[in-house]
Amino acid sequence: MSDTALNEGKRLTKENAVLLISCTDQKGLVAGVADFVFRNGGNIVHAEQHIDAPVGIFFHRVEWELEGFALARQEIAPAFKQLADRFGMNWHLHFSSERPRLAIFVSKADHCLLELLYLHRLGELAGEIACVISNHPDLEQLVVPSGIPFHVFPMNPENKNAQEDLELKLLRDCGVDLLVLARYMQVLTPRFLQHYLNRIINIHHSFLPAFIGKKPYHQAYERGVKLIGATSHYVTAELDQGPIIEQDVCRVTHRDSLEDLVLKGRDLERKVLGRSVRLHLLHRVLPYGRKTVVFE
Amino acid sequence: MSDTALNEGKRLTKENAVLLISCTDQKGLVAGVADFVFRNGGNIVHAEQHIDAPVGIFFHRVEWELEGFALARQEIAPAFKQLADRFGMNWHLHFSSERPRLAIFVSKADHCLLELLYLHRLGELAGEIACVISNHPDLEQLVVPSGIPFHVFPMNPENKNAQEDLELKLLRDCGVDLLVLARYMQVLTPRFLQHYLNRIINIHHSFLPAFIGKKPYHQAYERGVKLIGATSHYVTAELDQGPIIEQDVCRVTHRDSLEDLVLKGRDLERKVLGRSVRLHLLHRVLPYGRKTVVFE
Amino acid sequence: MSDTALNEGKRLTKENAVLLISCTDQKGLVAGVADFVFRNGGNIVHAEQHIDAPVGIFFHRVEWELEGFALARQEIAPAFKQLADRFGMNWHLHFSSERPRLAIFVSKADHCLLELLYLHRLGELAGEIACVISNHPDLEQLVVPSGIPFHVFPMNPENKNAQEDLELKLLRDCGVDLLVLARYMQVLTPRFLQHYLNRIINIHHSFLPAFIGKKPYHQAYERGVKLIGATSHYVTAELDQGPIIEQDVCRVTHRDSLEDLVLKGRDLERKVLGRSVRLHLLHRVLPYGRKTVVFE
Amino acid sequence: MSDTALNEGKRLTKENAVLLISCTDQKGLVAGVADFVFRNGGNIVHAEQHIDAPVGIFFHRVEWELEGFALARQEIAPAFKQLADRFGMNWHLHFSSERPRLAIFVSKADHCLLELLYLHRLGELAGEIACVISNHPDLEQLVVPSGIPFHVFPMNPENKNAQEDLELKLLRDCGVDLLVLARYMQVLTPRFLQHYLNRIINIHHSFLPAFIGKKPYHQAYERGVKLIGATSHYVTAELDQGPIIEQDVCRVTHRDSLEDLVLKGRDLERKVLGRSVRLHLLHRVLPYGRKTVVFE
Repeated sequence: MSDTALNEGKRLTKENAVLLISCTDQKGLVAGVADFVFRNGGNIVHAEQHIDAPVGIFFHRVEWELEGFALARQEIAPAFKQLADRFGMNWHLHFSSERPRLAIFVSKADHCLLELLYLHRLGELAGEIACVISNHPDLEQLVVPSGIPFHVFPMNPENKNAQEDLELKLLRDCGVDLLVLARYMQVLTPRFLQHYLNRIINIHHSFLPAFIGKKPYHQAYERGVKLIGATSHYVTAELDQGPIIEQDVCRVTHRDSLEDLVLKGRDLERKVLGRSVRLHLLHRVLPYGRKTVVFE
Repeated sequence: MSDTALNEGKRLTKENAVLLISCTDQKGLVAGVADFVFRNGGNIVHAEQHIDAPVGIFFHRVEWELEGFALARQEIAPAFKQLADRFGMNWHLHFSSERPRLAIFVSKADHCLLELLYLHRLGELAGEIACVISNHPDLEQLVVPSGIPFHVFPMNPENKNAQEDLELKLLRDCGVDLLVLARYMQVLTPRFLQHYLNRIINIHHSFLPAFIGKKPYHQAYERGVKLIGATSHYVTAELDQGPIIEQDVCRVTHRDSLEDLVLKGRDLERKVLGRSVRLHLLHRVLPYGRKTVVFE
Repeated sequence: MSDTALNEGKRLTKENAVLLISCTDQKGLVAGVADFVFRNGGNIVHAEQHIDAPVGIFFHRVEWELEGFALARQEIAPAFKQLADRFGMNWHLHFSSERPRLAIFVSKADHCLLELLYLHRLGELAGEIACVISNHPDLEQLVVPSGIPFHVFPMNPENKNAQEDLELKLLRDCGVDLLVLARYMQVLTPRFLQHYLNRIINIHHSFLPAFIGKKPYHQAYERGVKLIGATSHYVTAELDQGPIIEQDVCRVTHRDSLEDLVLKGRDLERKVLGRSVRLHLLHRVLPYGRKTVVFE
Repeated sequence: MSDTALNEGKRLTKENAVLLISCTDQKGLVAGVADFVFRNGGNIVHAEQHIDAPVGIFFHRVEWELEGFALARQEIAPAFKQLADRFGMNWHLHFSSERPRLAIFVSKADHCLLELLYLHRLGELAGEIACVISNHPDLEQLVVPSGIPFHVFPMNPENKNAQEDLELKLLRDCGVDLLVLARYMQVLTPRFLQHYLNRIINIHHSFLPAFIGKKPYHQAYERGVKLIGATSHYVTAELDQGPIIEQDVCRVTHRDSLEDLVLKGRDLERKVLGRSVRLHLLHRVLPYGRKTVVFE
């Protein structure tokens, strides 16, 4: 698996444009897009396509340098729309100079939050952390030195809807594009989720679809598995059933106690979540149905 | 993970004795066993113990050289029984010169069978393949050159009990100690299973407990997982719920078709099954409840 | 890593064309190739590109269906040449109906040979095994049932050049396109190698560049490594220095004897070699300098 | 691989004793040690042994609860000495209540330091961080909040011996038991090393013995490997040749730039180093010659 351009956000000095496309598979798609870029003087630096043959869907990601491109940034989308309409494309145009804004949701576990803060500090995230939101105050001191706002929204069955409304308002005010549930121990309501379809990434501490729901390490320990895993996925209304972005596992044996599983799992969780967030921010993940295409 | 003594059956010229012990954890267990071996002049070549602390069970495997041992083979068990009774041990005594007898059950897929035949030919299995049993005649030609008997028992809902009776008789006649389900596509009845408790090893082509039951690669493909797995386990009456011996996974991406999963899975299945059978034959696997201790 | 089209040779009923291209990176390459295919009515089913930015080389693999293509097979290369010359491309045109011919070189170890014979029997190799060549007669009986010719060329320092001449003649007579050294324990002379530049795949039983040369498992055992590996690479005149196609590792511990390393390594070697040969036959490997691009 | 007791330092409420033993293999070793513990009323909670058969060395680690043990802490060593002398054992007695003192050496890279500080904060290290030593001031601000002293010893060819003398004095004054080179970019002199034989752990950012010495990621990138690795080892006078404690790898492809290798390698390095330090502090690593026994 390749981390190729994972930290482009940091490294690129030139500005690039990225087109993410999906549509019914048909002749001329690649030629049409390549011609659009070339005709306007763009130099393609990455291009990947995928066809899900059984369902007949075409996926395409193309990235080109804007230096010397004939169209100004604001002219590209209108110009491309003609081609896109002809093929019936779903498409998104991104620019590497844009910095998507993240909100990180946490509860009490800190390792995933620390990983994201660390990657951000290194410049490895092609985005900005707009705020950290928690249902507990415990992790505030980890966030304070970074200057990133930390907001506490205590949750109980009675206040959940009201608190989510406040959160939604905050997210809108902060211009948040992506929510990352970094071991956030609350289930979001469908009402909340609909505002961020395919824009909420969760880390689940098991190798999904094994051990859905609560206390997956307990479940794994009781079952006597020989490998434990972690899974990042987009959140949908069905618990732990959203499109999977990334998974990883490590070996355990009969000698590993429940605490050992938690310890080993921590390494998996932070790595899998960090990787997924980086890929999403580089516009390399295309969810469709219960699956994702990940152009690495 | 260690393959340490996996092919001892082949390599050892000296004969060893192996004691497998489990009992309630209590003081003096290791000292008692070590003293028993030492007092009789045995040289311990492997010793491993494990305590499942939450349930308070002690597991022990000790292996020593019989050369120069004060007790004759048939005297060892009676002598050890005194110690064992004092501690309330469950115990089994094995000798490396014994060659457990295997029956391999297959249907139409050949890769797991080929792996076992290959390991056997290399001398890497510390046992003998007594026969191959199938519900289809397809794989007979693979077995014929080895001289191992190949028996066909066609199965349908009407004849299942009767056929299983014939199989049980055959297994008894062949003196079979271990059944290996090498992609055998039939569910054994509880009536059949009771004869071979913790002596039937199955390979399931998923990372259990994900994708229990039929067509796990189809399920994995539909779910869009990023890793596929294989699991070997002892067969119990509850489908795919028996104690897990070994698991392994490999990475897949959106580019992998269903056929690709099957192809990649083949490598996993043969490796995981081959490894489990080798470990079982070396008396390195102790099942308890839904778990196993594997002394590698 | 993806096995996507690894067994296309088996699965595809339609015939495809594959273009492998490398050249200096420049604008319009992707558009030019895509337009060539589209203009002639081809449907692109796979397209991948890579730019090695530090050295400024562009790599491209494009595969399209010939059904309904405006050009007949023999017309494609002449038509494409114009485009290729304009960009100064190195290029190769392949057809999925072509079946490259392999010669497998072995000595006494059988596991890599068995893997290739097995993959061939399953239809997972997009090519034909023209012959098996050995410096020892030991493995002949493994090959005989397949009907594939088995040739013995005993080697010693005196007869090496003469024997290689005979081998070269045989390879030419058999129309061999690819040589696979499946644990062949002879070093080929530079004189021999020049005839099959980037068309000889070797499996080395270590994680190169660690443990170059003889007895790598002995070296690994002496060094006390915690992982052992296997590496497949194209053979060049410099021992074990050719472009690497694929590598894999597995874990070992202090408990693993030298024999255990050999046993574990066997699984690695057959898997890594089998995978490399499959990828090469699907025209998915582009060697350049000491590296490869592998379009999986 | 098991993390079994990796964070015992944190979890155990009871005090345990640990004996680490190596000697020429001979009869009665296990029985003698087990009897010593049992006779004095100790309950063995872990016991592992290993015999390196080719060289005839026996290794043993036994851990028992001190609660109810007949001997006081200071009486154990004198009592055991009789047994140890009889067998000619090399042995060390440790108590879980002891907290070995670490000095962490760094230069400018922060990820390994952060990992160790994090593990320490979680209570996952069975030891105390006495100080952090660097040849550069860059990482001071990372250490300050923890209250751990940070010392800068700038190094150049002229002052090296003098600076090392000052470091040695500091280490003695701090009562340091273990040195951890957490991406410390200086070679320690043999004169310095002799004071901490098998008590200096280094992390090397390659899969040793591949890519010894400087800039291993550059070397790996130039060589076109398909996996990169990290190796932790005890430091000896011969560069990167000391006994290996732990290794791990991850996959790379042609798409990975040199920067990508560095990014991926960071995950490997911190994990491999953290794991090695935890194992060492639990007295689970026995170096001998160029190898280690790791009782996990």
